[in-house]
Amino acid sequence: MNSRDRASPRPFVTVTEVGTRDGLQIESTYIPAARKIEMIDRMIAAGMTSIEVTSFVSPKAVPQLQDAEEVLAGITRRPDTRLSALVPNLRAAQRAMRTSVDAAVLLCSASNTHNHKNLNRTVDESLAGLPEIAACLSESVDGRAPKMLIGAIATTFGCPFEGDIAVDDVLKIARAYVAAGVTEITLSDTTGMATPLNIRSMVRSMRDAVPPQVELALHLHNTRGIGLANVIVGLEEGIRRFDSSVGGLGGCPFAPGATGNICTEDLLFLLDESGFDTGVDLEAAIAVAHEMEASLGKRLVGQVMRAGPRLNLHAADTVATAAG
Amino acid sequence: MNSRDRASPRPFVTVTEVGTRDGLQIESTYIPAARKIEMIDRMIAAGMTSIEVTSFVSPKAVPQLQDAEEVLAGITRRPDTRLSALVPNLRAAQRAMRTSVDAAVLLCSASNTHNHKNLNRTVDESLAGLPEIAACLSESVDGRAPKMLIGAIATTFGCPFEGDIAVDDVLKIARAYVAAGVTEITLSDTTGMATPLNIRSMVRSMRDAVPPQVELALHLHNTRGIGLANVIVGLEEGIRRFDSSVGGLGGCPFAPGATGNICTEDLLFLLDESGFDTGVDLEAAIAVAHEMEASLGKRLVGQVMRAGPRLNLHAADTVATAAG
Repeated sequence: MNSRDRASPRPFVTVTEVGTRDGLQIESTYIPAARKIEMIDRMIAAGMTSIEVTSFVSPKAVPQLQDAEEVLAGITRRPDTRLSALVPNLRAAQRAMRTSVDAAVLLCSASNTHNHKNLNRTVDESLAGLPEIAACLSESVDGRAPKMLIGAIATTFGCPFEGDIAVDDVLKIARAYVAAGVTEITLSDTTGMATPLNIRSMVRSMRDAVPPQVELALHLHNTRGIGLANVIVGLEEGIRRFDSSVGGLGGCPFAPGATGNICTEDLLFLLDESGFDTGVDLEAAIAVAHEMEASLGKRLVGQVMRAGPRLNLHAADTVATAAG
Repeated sequence: MNSRDRASPRPFVTVTEVGTRDGLQIESTYIPAARKIEMIDRMIAAGMTSIEVTSFVSPKAVPQLQDAEEVLAGITRRPDTRLSALVPNLRAAQRAMRTSVDAAVLLCSASNTHNHKNLNRTVDESLAGLPEIAACLSESVDGRAPKMLIGAIATTFGCPFEGDIAVDDVLKIARAYVAAGVTEITLSDTTGMATPLNIRSMVRSMRDAVPPQVELALHLHNTRGIGLANVIVGLEEGIRRFDSSVGGLGGCPFAPGATGNICTEDLLFLLDESGFDTGVDLEAAIAVAHEMEASLGKRLVGQVMRAGPRLNLHAADTVATAAG
C-alpha cells in the first residue's frame, strides 16, 4: 500500500467513507443501487474498513437513499469491513434489524432548533426515545449479532440557527448515548462550524465526560475551507477516527456553492503525510473519486484527485513554469 | 474588527496578500492596472499591512504583470503598509529602484531543474548573482530608503521535476540570502508539495541555520487540499507570517484544475478561529474576493466567501435540512 520504508509502525487512523450517505443525500441525481454498491465495493477493495453506507430515513424525505436495504445486501465485504447506517428513529431501527448492517448510527442534534427541523422532535424527546431504539438494535435476529451502537451528535460545534452550543448541551447527549450502550461517539460538524479552538476544547470536555472505552470520532465538513486544518487539531487531541466523503461529494444546504464533507482522498493524503497509517491505497481511492464524478456528471471538489500524489513527477521538458 | 471579548491579547500573525502577483500571473485575462490598484487599496483598507504587489519580471514572460511600475505608483498606502515585489534578477532590481516598493523579494529555487526552467540559470549561478542584486537594492535613490530584502526559496518542500529536495540544498540558499543581507526568508511551497512532516522538519532546520533576527515566512499552495492544515503546523512551529491570495486566485501549471495559493479569507478565518489576531476585517476581505471574481469572470475557490463567517445565522423557517 505504501512504498516508503518506516523505522517504526505508524499509528493507525480509521477513515469512515460517508459519501454514499452524507455526500449523496444532497444530490438530486439518483445514483442507482448497483452503482452505489460498485463504489462501495471499490472503496473496500482500496482498503477502507469502515463505510457509512446509507440511512434508514424515510424514502419520501430522502429519495436518494430509498435503496438502503438493497445497497447493504449487495456489498462484497472483507472480514474486517464494518458497514454502518444512520438510524434516526425506532422505525429505522426496525428496518436495520432486518439487514446485515454491523453498526447503527443514532442521531441527535445538540441544537434544539436543528433537531426539530431534522428529526421533528426536541432534543429531550430524542433522548427519551433512545432506550427503546437501543433495545431494538441489541436483539439478535435471524442468528445475526446485535448491532454495534454509534452515537452521532449533530451541530456539536455550532448550529446554523442557534450559533454556538453550550458544552453541557453536547455532554448531556453523550451521557444519554453511553447510558443506552453506545461504544463510539461521533462529534459532527454538521454545517462546517468547527474550528481549531472549539474542537480542542470540545474533545477534551468529551474525553473527561465519557468512559475511556468509548471511542470518539470526528465528522467534519469543509464548508469554510478549514476541514483538514481541524483534522490536524483532532489528531493532536488523540482522535483516530474521521468521517469523509469520496471526492468531497456533497454540499451544505445553508451555503449554496460551499463544499460538504471533507474529501476522502485529501484526508488520506494528509494522514499519510502526517505520519499515520490508514491502510488505504491512495491511487485506488482517487480512481473511485473519478468514477463518482463520472456517475454524477458534475465536478467534485477533491484536490488530490486533480493533482495526484505529491511525488507523481513531471518531465522537465513538458511543462512551462511561471516565475515564483 | 472583531467583536469577541478577549481575556488576553492574541498573538499577531501577518498575512501577505500575493493575489495580484502569484494569483494573477497564471490568469490569461488581463486585469487592467486600475483594477489591480483598486483591489489592493481595498485590501489595505480591510487591514492588510503586507502586499506582494507584482513582479519585475519581463513583460514578455508574464504579460499580466507588464504594469508593475504603474500599479505600484497608484496604490494608496497607510503608514504601516509594506509593499513588496518579486525581483528575480539584476534588471528587475534596477527597475525596483525606480519605484517606491518597500521590499524586494529575491528568488531562487532549491531545485536546480526548477530554477533553470524558471530563471534560466543554475542555483549556483543564481546565488553568485545575489551580491550584485543586493548591492543595487541597498542603495538610496532619490532620497528613498534602501529596499528591505526578502529571500524566497522556491520548491522548498519538493519539486515537480526532482521530487524531494535535500535539506542542505535549501539551507545553502538560506545562508547565501543571509550573507546578502536578507532579513526575512520565505519558504515557498511552489507547487503544493508541503506536508505536515516536511514543514515541521524544514522550519526547525531553518531556524537552527539562520540568525534569530531573520524572520521565517511560509508561502503555501493548496494544490492537494492540505494548505491550511500546513498552516496549523507552521503556527505550531512559530511561524507568524503567511502568504495567501484573495479568493484562492491562481492555479498550478502542473495540475490542471488544481488550486493555487491558499485563500486569503479562508486563512484569515482560520487564524482568527485559532486564537490569532490578523488586524484584518474578514467581511471586507470577503467583499474584495467577490469583486475579484467579478473582474475575472470566473469562479474562485475560496470557501468562506461562499459560506460566510460561521456565526452568520439563518432563520429556522427558511432552510430545509437533510437528516445527518
